[in-house]
Amino acid sequence: MSQTGSWQDFRAIDVIRKKRDGGELSRGEIEGLINAYTRGDVPDYQVSAWLMAVVLRGMTRPETAALTDAMLRSGEVLDLSALSARKVDKHSTGGVGDKTSLVLAPLVAAAGVAVPMISGRGLGHTGGTLDKLEAIPGFNVNLQVTEFRRVLQTCGCAMIGQTAEIAPADRKLYALRDVTGTVESPYLICASIMSKKLAEGIDALVLDVKTGSGAFMKNERDAAFLAELMVETGERMGKQVIALITDMDQPLGKMIGNSLEVVECVEILRGGGPDDLRELCLDLAAWMLYLAGAARTVEEGKEKSAQLISSGKALDKFRQMIEMQGGDARAADESSIAKMKVLPCAKSSVDVVTGRSGYVSSMQCEQIGTACVILGGGRERKEDSVDPSVGIVLYKKVGDRVLANEPLATIYYNAEARAERARQLIGESYDIADAAPQTIRPLVHRIIGKAGEKN
Amino acid sequence: MSQTGSWQDFRAIDVIRKKRDGGELSRGEIEGLINAYTRGDVPDYQVSAWLMAVVLRGMTRPETAALTDAMLRSGEVLDLSALSARKVDKHSTGGVGDKTSLVLAPLVAAAGVAVPMISGRGLGHTGGTLDKLEAIPGFNVNLQVTEFRRVLQTCGCAMIGQTAEIAPADRKLYALRDVTGTVESPYLICASIMSKKLAEGIDALVLDVKTGSGAFMKNERDAAFLAELMVETGERMGKQVIALITDMDQPLGKMIGNSLEVVECVEILRGGGPDDLRELCLDLAAWMLYLAGAARTVEEGKEKSAQLISSGKALDKFRQMIEMQGGDARAADESSIAKMKVLPCAKSSVDVVTGRSGYVSSMQCEQIGTACVILGGGRERKEDSVDPSVGIVLYKKVGDRVLANEPLATIYYNAEARAERARQLIGESYDIADAAPQTIRPLVHRIIGKAGEKN
Repeated sequence: MSQTGSWQDFRAIDVIRKKRDGGELSRGEIEGLINAYTRGDVPDYQVSAWLMAVVLRGMTRPETAALTDAMLRSGEVLDLSALSARKVDKHSTGGVGDKTSLVLAPLVAAAGVAVPMISGRGLGHTGGTLDKLEAIPGFNVNLQVTEFRRVLQTCGCAMIGQTAEIAPADRKLYALRDVTGTVESPYLICASIMSKKLAEGIDALVLDVKTGSGAFMKNERDAAFLAELMVETGERMGKQVIALITDMDQPLGKMIGNSLEVVECVEILRGGGPDDLRELCLDLAAWMLYLAGAARTVEEGKEKSAQLISSGKALDKFRQMIEMQGGDARAADESSIAKMKVLPCAKSSVDVVTGRSGYVSSMQCEQIGTACVILGGGRERKEDSVDPSVGIVLYKKVGDRVLANEPLATIYYNAEARAERARQLIGESYDIADAAPQTIRPLVHRIIGKAGEKN
Repeated sequence: MSQTGSWQDFRAIDVIRKKRDGGELSRGEIEGLINAYTRGDVPDYQVSAWLMAVVLRGMTRPETAALTDAMLRSGEVLDLSALSARKVDKHSTGGVGDKTSLVLAPLVAAAGVAVPMISGRGLGHTGGTLDKLEAIPGFNVNLQVTEFRRVLQTCGCAMIGQTAEIAPADRKLYALRDVTGTVESPYLICASIMSKKLAEGIDALVLDVKTGSGAFMKNERDAAFLAELMVETGERMGKQVIALITDMDQPLGKMIGNSLEVVECVEILRGGGPDDLRELCLDLAAWMLYLAGAARTVEEGKEKSAQLISSGKALDKFRQMIEMQGGDARAADESSIAKMKVLPCAKSSVDVVTGRSGYVSSMQCEQIGTACVILGGGRERKEDSVDPSVGIVLYKKVGDRVLANEPLATIYYNAEARAERARQLIGESYDIADAAPQTIRPLVHRIIGKAGEKN
């Protein structure tokens, strides 16, 4: 409480009280608080009280934009003006088997659009792009900004983790939110995501907002609310933003686990792979190309993307990016488990079987993500290291026919006890019914954003 | 964020989340949080998030009682079982010219009831009992517990400040609430007041909950809500508690300022003084005697109190207490400004006059309290010292006839510039109308508590 009486404190407490009483904060008030907090002039205990008031009172659109802007400007905004190409990125709110970034960056770059992608690690039951990239031996996600710019200039895409220079206010706020029960606010989530993404110096952004049992937003209403908030915030800041509300009621694709997900991406980039994953990659790529002006319509963007895959240009780009970021480019040849040589594969495997016949009526998607974390594919605690070689291959998804004693999935593991817990979780996550489900949830539920109205 | 991952943190965040989501905390959860915070095992930033959630979500009655109990038991509870007399105290939520404690302690003790009174200092625009007592030269409010017990045993009443041993959780929480915008919650106010009062080892408590422009609870509904909360919390903890909702839409009595308020109390103890102050002192004393079993009815308690004043016994008790606490007992002879010799009086005085004739229709009571703080009679910052000699004497109160250029009040001051600001504030705080106000607010608005239903 040593700061009592300093002028910064008096301002901070006014901002806390105003939000507590349901008032709308001005841009100056929000900027003042965020700047003072980043500098260390306002203590954690005042900001956590303010964060809780925001969680319970909410924020208006102008407040959300002002918060995003203040967080964005707390650090460096990448200056990519030397690149003549339009710069586009995609962000996903996270899911299970959600590996589209590894396909999208090279695919969209192959069309001549720059993709400066700054990604995150796995969070809770969901996987993270950085963890997947690091399954490729030698791949360096910790490039300096100058190196990042060089890869981007030469290759058209580059994939790294958040640097210390980008949105330091977000890093500080996120650590505080994590321990004060103030993570779950669409306004704070929006500001956290958008401040980091807009610091990439991009022109346009495609948001993949997940909904369903494997997403953070379990119901579509919450997902749509967050999507609208992010789109409007981005638009207020002069960016083209579109959000696709997509299904995460079951895992995306068939492979879960860092190394295995790289394999599945290679499969997609080689023209194969599971339908749902290929379809979503093409949809997202189509929007990225459309917003970048590399396609006149989303439909044209989709066709163009499909061609870039069948011509092998997307795969070449993937190979080039791996090489430029220090990775073993032979990973780009490993499109199945049988072909894994460079990519690490776990020592042992075991099947998950069911005793009954019928149809898969639903899957507890979060449980499947948790099973992968238990195997060592994610972190139970912040300080845990990730085992890239473990994972799960699903043979059955919602709507599929199942025979008694037929395997539902195979677990790839390195520790017996963990495999047993994972097997139990996956077994329980499948709901088997006598009849096939009447309806299957669509892959893309809704599209939100001005750009979507024209298409 | 160094505590992340410790088991205490995991518990703290569960408690924060539960309250954030509107859940009811168990006694164990509240106890766990308060104990861990008092020990220093839970950091300020988690507790401030929790406090904000309490401010915005509220608490149930069992939660409020559990919080009060946990705060009470964070420190020592005075063991006054050696005293055969019943032990009663009074607490006021604070106002302007609210000086009844100085009259009540000796008056009720004169009836053979023990009054172990632990009081506070001025807060914001309101005065504090300790500051008033310290206007008496030599009076020591910082007695050790053994000394406090000795004065109480011999004299029947003793008046001190909060010791380090009493409710340490409240001291820590209050400092945090002060800088995080979490003061304004009836649940937290209730727990703070009741934990300290019940630590006095009393059998019964009379609460004077102020309402009006000079009170913290400006409207009666808020005052009644807090009163009910405190009464129910006290009753749940096995104490007899009654609350009087009393008027603070204008100052109580005619004198404001520490030394001047002692003078007015002496006036009352000598059978004189302003009607409203005398009336309220007799009402509160009556309830204290009734709850202590020293009167069969409140009416009888009032008659008994009036007798103890007219017989001079209450004044003798006041003199005895001053002596036993190291003060100059000649203060008990100074019942008017003209008689002030031991009690300090400011060097200069100036009148506040009005240019128009009419009737006082209302007074901005908080402004009058603020004027006294500006004169030096209260603290603008925590570290300020208080000037006991300054103050205000009011000649006109609500309903009084006023003639043009007739003085409304006299300011006693030591610094010209402060006097000028105070004069302006007091002048503005009087509303003068052509006609007398149709109704005048009663002194006691309502009585809340089970004991009140019988009377």
